[in-house]
Amino acid sequence: VREDLPEPVTAAGEVVVRVRLAAICGTDLELLRGYVPFTGVPGHEMVGVVESPGAWQGRRVVAEITVACGACRECLAGRRGHCLERTVLGLRGRHGAFAERAAVPVVNLHAVPDEVPDHTAVLTEPVAAALEVLEQVRVEANHLVAVVGDGRLGQLCARVLAWRGCRLTVLGHHRAKLALLEAAGIATSIAEATPPLGADLVVECTGSPDGLAMARRHVRPRGTLVLKSTFAGTVEVDPAGLVVDEITIVGSRCGPFPAALELLRQGSLDLAPLLTARYSLRDGREAFARAATPEALKVLLEPG
Amino acid sequence: VREDLPEPVTAAGEVVVRVRLAAICGTDLELLRGYVPFTGVPGHEMVGVVESPGAWQGRRVVAEITVACGACRECLAGRRGHCLERTVLGLRGRHGAFAERAAVPVVNLHAVPDEVPDHTAVLTEPVAAALEVLEQVRVEANHLVAVVGDGRLGQLCARVLAWRGCRLTVLGHHRAKLALLEAAGIATSIAEATPPLGADLVVECTGSPDGLAMARRHVRPRGTLVLKSTFAGTVEVDPAGLVVDEITIVGSRCGPFPAALELLRQGSLDLAPLLTARYSLRDGREAFARAATPEALKVLLEPG
Repeated sequence: VREDLPEPVTAAGEVVVRVRLAAICGTDLELLRGYVPFTGVPGHEMVGVVESPGAWQGRRVVAEITVACGACRECLAGRRGHCLERTVLGLRGRHGAFAERAAVPVVNLHAVPDEVPDHTAVLTEPVAAALEVLEQVRVEANHLVAVVGDGRLGQLCARVLAWRGCRLTVLGHHRAKLALLEAAGIATSIAEATPPLGADLVVECTGSPDGLAMARRHVRPRGTLVLKSTFAGTVEVDPAGLVVDEITIVGSRCGPFPAALELLRQGSLDLAPLLTARYSLRDGREAFARAATPEALKVLLEPG
Repeated sequence: VREDLPEPVTAAGEVVVRVRLAAICGTDLELLRGYVPFTGVPGHEMVGVVESPGAWQGRRVVAEITVACGACRECLAGRRGHCLERTVLGLRGRHGAFAERAAVPVVNLHAVPDEVPDHTAVLTEPVAAALEVLEQVRVEANHLVAVVGDGRLGQLCARVLAWRGCRLTVLGHHRAKLALLEAAGIATSIAEATPPLGADLVVECTGSPDGLAMARRHVRPRGTLVLKSTFAGTVEVDPAGLVVDEITIVGSRCGPFPAALELLRQGSLDLAPLLTARYSLRDGREAFARAATPEALKVLLEPG
């Protein structure tokens, strides 16, 4: 956490958002380990209020994190999230939300419904990322689904999949985190002690290089393995095994904010158990240290 | 090639097929390198005539290669091709077609239309495998598609994709093999000299560990990479890259025989350029050596 945070500079079409609450994501911890070469202000999960004059002034908002150029091959093909020239809030070429204020394009803003409190709205981005799985893969009530990983991402993906309805088990190895899922009515199992599940769908949320192999062993032939974790480094895979078993692997990143906000407005997801602690932005170092402990889930940062 | 080929022993529901022609597949060459621990008679691409008495006697047939138990979890789920107890003609627990005769279950047989000569019918199995790509992935006329690999598998996948209709390029590094594709009206490019294509679909057919990375660099964000090659060994992949670009990877193995036979009956695929040589089964060693040369495509074996 820097003492010399720059005041945000807005480009055309951007507004200044005064941050009310931000959350530390596993990717923020990976940033510190050099996952991508980013030297700006981190932070991409936030809720705030628009300060700049105009139609949005005074509104409570969340913001999609990818800022597209609108002119490259991917933008012209309708894949703005994959813009070749993109900046990403707190992750690539653009200061993020671990600050008093952040500059955000108006097109990235979504108004937060009054029913959604700040400590829930701040999780819109990761809830949307969890919902992305449902955008990419058909999930039905009779599908056997496994989430591998009981951390931040696993907890959110599991809750979204449980809301969607399927035969769900979460595999992890932190008993306290698995207990939170059990309390939400979600079946869990200790990963190392679980025989191959033959699941229709496995969602890899471990955030670790071992996760892919662990997830792979639970996918049935012709089943689907969704990758959600981002971390630095490569892993060994056996391509022939994927061919013989006709496995589908789907990389999955950001998701739909409107659907996430609607879920939060309906109160369909109980996210309160995921809130580990809240720190003042001034105590950011301490907050990051706490977020990096094995038992931590979401650690929130509050400016001012 | 063994001098002491066993006479086929038929189980219930099986017939003896007298082999008229068999073809050497890349997987047969991989078998010799220890791809899977198989010690029987190899050979899974063949056309023959049923010798056993009964309804099929005297009919010219091709045979699906996977023999399912009908009782395991995968069979009961309708995925007989992924039977947990399966045997596979010439590949797993079952003698294959590089012999005078082979035992095959009746349920695996397909009659060969009279219009299809032996030297084309013998390729039904790999044509079906190429068609499997179209079963798994939506391919449309405006899709930019790349096949990586100009060998046996690449040639067949490319010809099937060209028949389906799409904006196709084959990447390879054997000029003579690329020339065969150009002669069929298919665009080609030297793999090493080709900048990233940003393809909607890339089909990996190199049969080599380098192929996956080579194929990966031509897939656009949210695009699909189909894996067709089977070979022994593992490769390094960067899972975060798949997540960030939301790539889908699809393992693809055996395909639909009826569709393949119909394509061959219509004469929609010109496979004659793929026939490198024909050997007597007695000269099997020489045939395998020929098939292993870089310039070889399909090498056929003729018993008797």
